[in-house]
Amino acid sequence: MESRLWRKGGAMLPDPAHLAALDAADPLAHARARFRLPPDLVYLDGNSLGPLPASLPGRMAAAVAQEWGEGLIRSWNEAGWIDLPVQLGAAIAPIVGAEPAAVVACDSVSINLFKLASAALAMRPGRRTILMEADDFPTDAYVMQGLAGLADVQVRRVPRAHLLAALDGDVALLLLAHVHYVSGAVHDMAAMSAAATSAGALSLWDLSHSAGALALALDADGADFAVGCGYKYLNGGPGAPAFAYMARRHWQAAEPALTGWMGHAAPFDFAGDYVPAPGARRLLTGTPPILAMRALEAGIGCFDGIPLADAEAKSRQLVQLFARYAQGLPGVTVADPGPGRHGAHLIIRHPAARRVMAALIARGVIGDMRPPDVMRFGFPALTTRYADIGTALAALASVLRSGEWQDARFAPRGMVS
Amino acid sequence: MESRLWRKGGAMLPDPAHLAALDAADPLAHARARFRLPPDLVYLDGNSLGPLPASLPGRMAAAVAQEWGEGLIRSWNEAGWIDLPVQLGAAIAPIVGAEPAAVVACDSVSINLFKLASAALAMRPGRRTILMEADDFPTDAYVMQGLAGLADVQVRRVPRAHLLAALDGDVALLLLAHVHYVSGAVHDMAAMSAAATSAGALSLWDLSHSAGALALALDADGADFAVGCGYKYLNGGPGAPAFAYMARRHWQAAEPALTGWMGHAAPFDFAGDYVPAPGARRLLTGTPPILAMRALEAGIGCFDGIPLADAEAKSRQLVQLFARYAQGLPGVTVADPGPGRHGAHLIIRHPAARRVMAALIARGVIGDMRPPDVMRFGFPALTTRYADIGTALAALASVLRSGEWQDARFAPRGMVS
Repeated sequence: MESRLWRKGGAMLPDPAHLAALDAADPLAHARARFRLPPDLVYLDGNSLGPLPASLPGRMAAAVAQEWGEGLIRSWNEAGWIDLPVQLGAAIAPIVGAEPAAVVACDSVSINLFKLASAALAMRPGRRTILMEADDFPTDAYVMQGLAGLADVQVRRVPRAHLLAALDGDVALLLLAHVHYVSGAVHDMAAMSAAATSAGALSLWDLSHSAGALALALDADGADFAVGCGYKYLNGGPGAPAFAYMARRHWQAAEPALTGWMGHAAPFDFAGDYVPAPGARRLLTGTPPILAMRALEAGIGCFDGIPLADAEAKSRQLVQLFARYAQGLPGVTVADPGPGRHGAHLIIRHPAARRVMAALIARGVIGDMRPPDVMRFGFPALTTRYADIGTALAALASVLRSGEWQDARFAPRGMVS
Repeated sequence: MESRLWRKGGAMLPDPAHLAALDAADPLAHARARFRLPPDLVYLDGNSLGPLPASLPGRMAAAVAQEWGEGLIRSWNEAGWIDLPVQLGAAIAPIVGAEPAAVVACDSVSINLFKLASAALAMRPGRRTILMEADDFPTDAYVMQGLAGLADVQVRRVPRAHLLAALDGDVALLLLAHVHYVSGAVHDMAAMSAAATSAGALSLWDLSHSAGALALALDADGADFAVGCGYKYLNGGPGAPAFAYMARRHWQAAEPALTGWMGHAAPFDFAGDYVPAPGARRLLTGTPPILAMRALEAGIGCFDGIPLADAEAKSRQLVQLFARYAQGLPGVTVADPGPGRHGAHLIIRHPAARRVMAALIARGVIGDMRPPDVMRFGFPALTTRYADIGTALAALASVLRSGEWQDARFAPRGMVS
């Protein structure tokens, strides 16, 4: 390994020739051509907002001018608009290891969490606790707090190590993020789902930082419910529709409290009382956002023929490479991602993370930050080149060594997860 | 009036010269150029899906290629993405008679109904009834039924004439559609809001069929809460984001049970507990759908400089003209819209409404239908010409007289409200 290190102004950086060789041998290297990426940028924030699919500008222009402009209301049937939530759900299904009819594309992660958690509470009427991990992404906690107030249950948040012990007979629902949005730590979905089942609880998985990044097996792992994000690794565009999963064994019993006419068994009968549609389609609520759905469709299409196991392996290698060299840089703390499963992003701590990241972005390397001291870099397998690691590390080394991050202009505003 | 009628093959139709004179004198005639409409079509379904704003193809191309493709994550700040829900809310506000900060653009009508109704229930803790009109748009009832199950309250649906009598001391919330989606009947917002207030209840108005069609005055009329649709008269595109309104007097007390990180007081602090943002911003939940927001922005922009009172007056005249001549056609029943306030759409009943509408669409005149026997025609003031009334009536007369609607090919599938 040491032969692959070389000195550049005092910092250890990976050998460009070695990175080039890794790119040349990368079986996923061709996938980058499916996107439009600015040539002068190293974009390590596809975990927060995936890049633009190359097919979308033309596809969106047609959706706007022909489907909407010319087809008008007729396009609900003639352009297949009405089927998009189910059709895109079926397209997402293989990415998350689910049967096609178990997934629908709709609403946002927050909204979908509420739907599925409310269904779970109704399926476990005697139990009064929603259990979650203490420092998971805030929206998950906010949504559960709101639901808990309405349904008169409690939200219990415990550290990861205490989750199993907390799975007692009062837990109706175990809500977990599969990949942690900061640390990148991965839960064992099969083990935790089984633990929930053993405790008489239901499991709800937030796949925001794993869908499209890691090989998932919702059906095989025994997950009960799941939600995931359309705009991160699925490349569906800013604020893209999310998705929701419901295991087949719950298709009859699970009834979300948050409904709407598109989830009705017969929406165009305009019946007075709600009757849930069969299966996961009951997770639909209002009229689907068609233009956003067309963008998500293009993003999902970028996964055609991509084995998720290959994507996970490549991202893990990128994360490990970046971590190994970053830990030699001044002033930073790098958590060792370890040899096992890890999300496709890595965090590096620095007391002035916000300013360092701003200085890095000014040099054309884009990551993001999470308060107070975390810089986060994502390595989606479809778009990240091994050479990008070298470029990013060199820029980070320069920013840290020069002290340019202390310049007054590097006080950015918040960025979006 | 009789001098304006002329016979054409047995049916009374309006005089084309008279219609041309009305178009020539129409102060809103210029607004049609703000849209792209197929030249060979008479589109009387803008009440279900508004037409394409002419500015959008270029605007959307820029949002996709530049804002997303080149700006990537930076566009949340640099392209102002993060402000769009509040900014578009402020742009919608004058259309619905509200102060700018009382409105946000977000989610769907269904989701926004749930948020505001849950807030209302929490503000009236001793009361256990949600009161609504018996035959309002189904999604409103479905959403309330779901919420009622979770919050352990009842939904009571009574005919319009019984609403005031049903406003008893158990009613927490009065939910009304301002314009009825079928009949076009209009509630007196000031009177019904005052009645709710007098009964100790809160009012929630569904403006789906009135926002952008009628002159509204949410603030002045004393409405407590409101929701409305982005894709009908606001021309925001298929499944556009909806909007939600919260009167200033409730900005502190109203706390929706359905939340998310974008409604947090400090979303980018990633705090563990939910603290609602000030005012209507707390109605935001997940990450806003940017591409859909750009389309809605273009749709709202078409109202620049349009007095809503003029729009309402023009649509009323179109509705009355259409009703007057349609009632002479064979086999139809036309409800008299009367001389007072009425929605910008009209229904015509025919036992074979579905087939008649399909035949009409085949002739290039687009309306929609609602089971079992309703044909619905919308007359948005920004895009409908008086001459369109003549063309549509002539086509309808031909379809009904010829009996061509009995042809087997006219058995359409459901269309979307």
